[in-house]
Amino acid sequence: MITLASDFGSPYPAAMRGVICARTDGRIVDVTHEFPRQDVRAAAFWVREVLPCFPPATHCVVVDPGVGTDRAAVVVEADGHRLVAPDNGVVVPVARRLGNATDGRPDDETEAFDVWEYEYENSEMASSTFHGRDLFAPTAAAVHDADGPGELDRCVRTDEWVDLRFPDPEVGEEGAVGEILVVDDFGNAVTNVPGEVVAGLGSVRVDGERVPVRAAYAELDAGDRLVTVGSHGNVELAVNRGRGDRAFGVAVGDRTALDW
Amino acid sequence: MITLASDFGSPYPAAMRGVICARTDGRIVDVTHEFPRQDVRAAAFWVREVLPCFPPATHCVVVDPGVGTDRAAVVVEADGHRLVAPDNGVVVPVARRLGNATDGRPDDETEAFDVWEYEYENSEMASSTFHGRDLFAPTAAAVHDADGPGELDRCVRTDEWVDLRFPDPEVGEEGAVGEILVVDDFGNAVTNVPGEVVAGLGSVRVDGERVPVRAAYAELDAGDRLVTVGSHGNVELAVNRGRGDRAFGVAVGDRTALDW
Amino acid sequence: MITLASDFGSPYPAAMRGVICARTDGRIVDVTHEFPRQDVRAAAFWVREVLPCFPPATHCVVVDPGVGTDRAAVVVEADGHRLVAPDNGVVVPVARRLGNATDGRPDDETEAFDVWEYEYENSEMASSTFHGRDLFAPTAAAVHDADGPGELDRCVRTDEWVDLRFPDPEVGEEGAVGEILVVDDFGNAVTNVPGEVVAGLGSVRVDGERVPVRAAYAELDAGDRLVTVGSHGNVELAVNRGRGDRAFGVAVGDRTALDW
Repeated sequence: MITLASDFGSPYPAAMRGVICARTDGRIVDVTHEFPRQDVRAAAFWVREVLPCFPPATHCVVVDPGVGTDRAAVVVEADGHRLVAPDNGVVVPVARRLGNATDGRPDDETEAFDVWEYEYENSEMASSTFHGRDLFAPTAAAVHDADGPGELDRCVRTDEWVDLRFPDPEVGEEGAVGEILVVDDFGNAVTNVPGEVVAGLGSVRVDGERVPVRAAYAELDAGDRLVTVGSHGNVELAVNRGRGDRAFGVAVGDRTALDW
Repeated sequence: MITLASDFGSPYPAAMRGVICARTDGRIVDVTHEFPRQDVRAAAFWVREVLPCFPPATHCVVVDPGVGTDRAAVVVEADGHRLVAPDNGVVVPVARRLGNATDGRPDDETEAFDVWEYEYENSEMASSTFHGRDLFAPTAAAVHDADGPGELDRCVRTDEWVDLRFPDPEVGEEGAVGEILVVDDFGNAVTNVPGEVVAGLGSVRVDGERVPVRAAYAELDAGDRLVTVGSHGNVELAVNRGRGDRAFGVAVGDRTALDW
Repeated sequence: MITLASDFGSPYPAAMRGVICARTDGRIVDVTHEFPRQDVRAAAFWVREVLPCFPPATHCVVVDPGVGTDRAAVVVEADGHRLVAPDNGVVVPVARRLGNATDGRPDDETEAFDVWEYEYENSEMASSTFHGRDLFAPTAAAVHDADGPGELDRCVRTDEWVDLRFPDPEVGEEGAVGEILVVDDFGNAVTNVPGEVVAGLGSVRVDGERVPVRAAYAELDAGDRLVTVGSHGNVELAVNRGRGDRAFGVAVGDRTALDW
């Protein structure tokens, strides 16, 4: 199985599907092509959430503002999954999570994944603007059909790769200061604050205003603001049947202060 | 075959696809994940239109504003199809249509479908905000692989389920008063008025203004308003190469009066 | 393999998938359903770019503002691919490219594709507004399962079909005047000017203002305008990490003058 994830929207992903279908019979499953355009950190967050739901597969993740420059292409192997991506950190958080999956120590410092740099066969033929089609899709097809990245001529093990870590929240005795990492399609504003910090609380102050903490959106009336813990385990600013980002007046990258 | 339909947008459906791929080899076909957010009635309308085009399959339909509350999960069997959904009525109209499919009596009062309540194995483990991933996707995989819902330990036949019916239009000798049920991506405003009422008419008055009745959008000039009968069989307010909702100034839930 | 491309958005394509699944076991791959609504020329441009990436397949392309009128349905065969579409020119550019693919003479005047007109079996049963479901999807399934269009009873060879050609740019010694053909989801404004004309140039004047010519977006600072050659081989007006259409103030159909 080959999964595809990108910020390409439409119709560029079709070229990637075509290139893969022309090279392998492997099943293709789209993750999404609607990541926020050129937002490597948001894509890194979401692939960390969704790819571990899949059985071991080859995942092609292309959010690549550096396309056409000399940034490398990497193949990462973690817990039986293979990740094909530009070397900009977009698959590092998911590799870290997958690599530690079996022992339940997410974000452990002992990395349990391997990185190869992939030199594309015809890279001089590739366009400078669409490596999804010309580099990553054919690489994903090759990786899918190989027994392992090490089997491929043009894959070279490397210890030099671009890391990406989400910012740490400041968690104290009386509150936490976090940052909005992503806003989902419902408008829920997802912070980097771990859900544990609001466990057992009936309410918290968000940037000074008191807001109820609830397990489910529908525990409040339509239009009411709440703090909840999303499916990713982080604190989320939300509105029942509405958009949390608008109601709280926040956007990606904003800092937000929670007090209890 | 397992079909997926939701209002999740991106990227949450990828988690559902992953969960299903990890549990069954069944083919996955996406219906859509762009239903109007949390609009159970609109989703009920569209799945009634599109799911009967499929061969018998397991259909997972998740538009679920009550996620995390004590609303039940249901499995509905109708005419060989199996529908997995929250118990909020979203699959009742399609079940009714499927169940009556063979005798051509749509919306007949004699229900020809069966309902099971499904108690999820690890419901205490599930998140409170993403039952698509934690409850409905694994249930759909289990239902797909089973010979029937009755075979599953945690499926219990029930006669208590949440109904959903579309409002009836008022149709008289000189006109009809209906409601806009949905607006499609082209901007066509779909009413609950059956197409038969405009059969043979050259024009009708819509909220007082005379508008031609035509079988095809392109029978008029670009930008011209028309009344037509959509592929769903209902009266539709449309504009050739434009958006009917804007030209008629209507939105979902608005009442509209047709006179002839 | 059957690919699907349309301007239908959501959820109408699901009905097409269902109809096809009910008639054939062939694999379905979505190209896109987000072509600009009813823009036959834009769809013709994009399918010319992406369909040749696929191995030989049946491609169902429906952008059809004339739905319900007497426009014909065509099946086009080119280089082993079969294209099912309304007879409005939407698949002619890709057929021309596929037909000439082997000898590397794109847009050659010697056509190397064949056209059949397809008369649908139950056309009197079809809706007037959704031939994607009632005509093109079943035709694509039939074409997929047949050894060739000529094998189908209702397919008749024809030399009369609607052509579609993109406008030619005016290219002179000191500049070119072109037209914006499409704007992609990143906001890159794609012209009809072939990339060769800016080869080796460090900058050009676009509508009078000097703009650097670069191979990759990221060779400039975020927000900087550039002229580049897109993956389609045409000159593109772009912005690094931004939208070229807005920065250059252009939209589809606008003329643009490049001087060197």
